[in-house]
Amino acid sequence: MCQLLGMNCNVPTDICFSFTGFRARGGLTDHHRDGWGIAFFEGKGVRLFLDPCASADSAVAELVRQYPIRSLNVIAHIRKATQGEIRLENTHPFQRELWGRYWIFAHNGNLLNYAPALSGRFQPVGGTDSETAFCHILDELARRFGDRPPPAPALHACLAELATAIGRHGEFNFLLSDGERLFAHCSSRLAYVLRQAPFALAHLADEDLAVDFSEVTTPNDRVAVIATIPLTDNETWHRMPSGTLMSFRHGVPDELGMLPTVAAPPCATPIRSA
Amino acid sequence: MCQLLGMNCNVPTDICFSFTGFRARGGLTDHHRDGWGIAFFEGKGVRLFLDPCASADSAVAELVRQYPIRSLNVIAHIRKATQGEIRLENTHPFQRELWGRYWIFAHNGNLLNYAPALSGRFQPVGGTDSETAFCHILDELARRFGDRPPPAPALHACLAELATAIGRHGEFNFLLSDGERLFAHCSSRLAYVLRQAPFALAHLADEDLAVDFSEVTTPNDRVAVIATIPLTDNETWHRMPSGTLMSFRHGVPDELGMLPTVAAPPCATPIRSA
Repeated sequence: MCQLLGMNCNVPTDICFSFTGFRARGGLTDHHRDGWGIAFFEGKGVRLFLDPCASADSAVAELVRQYPIRSLNVIAHIRKATQGEIRLENTHPFQRELWGRYWIFAHNGNLLNYAPALSGRFQPVGGTDSETAFCHILDELARRFGDRPPPAPALHACLAELATAIGRHGEFNFLLSDGERLFAHCSSRLAYVLRQAPFALAHLADEDLAVDFSEVTTPNDRVAVIATIPLTDNETWHRMPSGTLMSFRHGVPDELGMLPTVAAPPCATPIRSA
Repeated sequence: MCQLLGMNCNVPTDICFSFTGFRARGGLTDHHRDGWGIAFFEGKGVRLFLDPCASADSAVAELVRQYPIRSLNVIAHIRKATQGEIRLENTHPFQRELWGRYWIFAHNGNLLNYAPALSGRFQPVGGTDSETAFCHILDELARRFGDRPPPAPALHACLAELATAIGRHGEFNFLLSDGERLFAHCSSRLAYVLRQAPFALAHLADEDLAVDFSEVTTPNDRVAVIATIPLTDNETWHRMPSGTLMSFRHGVPDELGMLPTVAAPPCATPIRSA
């Protein structure tokens, strides 16, 4: 499988600390050696770094770890291939443009017997179930809402509906962002931590590295970090319930709330109408 | 304005040597300080490095200069802004997906009074004439050929027609690739050099750096390098005629030939029909 890392903030923030621990899982402290990638939104633009090799050995990952790119929304991924060869075109995150915005998507899980009918507007370049799911999501958004984005609640509800449908095919944890919000879907495993004043010292779980956030932040800063497995061992991580979609904005879960994405189980006894 | 650099090869080749000279023009030997970018096709995948600062000062450019990414098709750009602020989303090259392939585009020039009617399928994220032209081109390709790519000659002819139409609005030198071919359009300035056996020593025009290609190639290697201004001072560069579209494949101009993209001037005297 794979692991996901996301960050959503209210002021542009670098992800060097979290990425240091996350990167170690790509071949050093864990076995996700089949490629890695990270996408940074900067304004409406995106920088996407991809490498189809282990992040622990990657010169590009070393640059990302050292080079403080400040961003409001970041999505990163380390890969343990399930479907699709180890090639650049199968390396997450994936990027497309819809409604004059870039969209970034990364997936942890495995979808079986999943072959959605796509219109052709968004077509996978590689051979992963993940990129197909991303194209499916964007295809549906374009089909339902036309050439302009809908209000945020409608977008959120549509994503929850799509996550429910696609999630019937298997494990479907994902992070998705249009640069404004970061959507996190937990089908089996995803957790988040909220960092805000009073900031404290955080210590990585994967390396003996700590940072005192009170020294590098202002009192109004807010940062949400989302990961498959908590990255620090001395902070309060919230485990997302299975079958939920959350939306983060300005460094906190936003007003859109948490939507269920579990298909209602068939009733054991039919409900009688009165 | 800006400067373009492209490379098309028959075996995956790194661009470290050419990029060293090109990068120097982004703030050191020339004034193109408003951002830079480079895209490498690797198989069907793309690595796109963008930085909205001078390439001469960029840590990412330093990585690209040192890190030999081997590719069949590369497009790079250094920017001197004409339209659109100096921001990441206005930094070339631009990337989109069409027909399950990534397309990469970079432009040198300036288009005036240019506001094409776009269908909405491809929308610019930033505020440049260049990205709008790219969206316009892909929009027309999708409209004319549907959800599958046409045969190469039809694609080439369509691109020549679009280059002619868009070129009426101003200077429109561009490089475009779908990972298989590299299309080069010269409206005012573009040159190329073909490197093949017997390989010789090449010396950069912008730095005192030389490489003996006979030591790093095999006899079957073929590489075409395309640039706004020749990058070396001891090789034979071919200046492309204004108003022509070329297609490179496997390191040489391919069988599609050179198509004119100059609108036929109106006849001074009407031709009489017999």
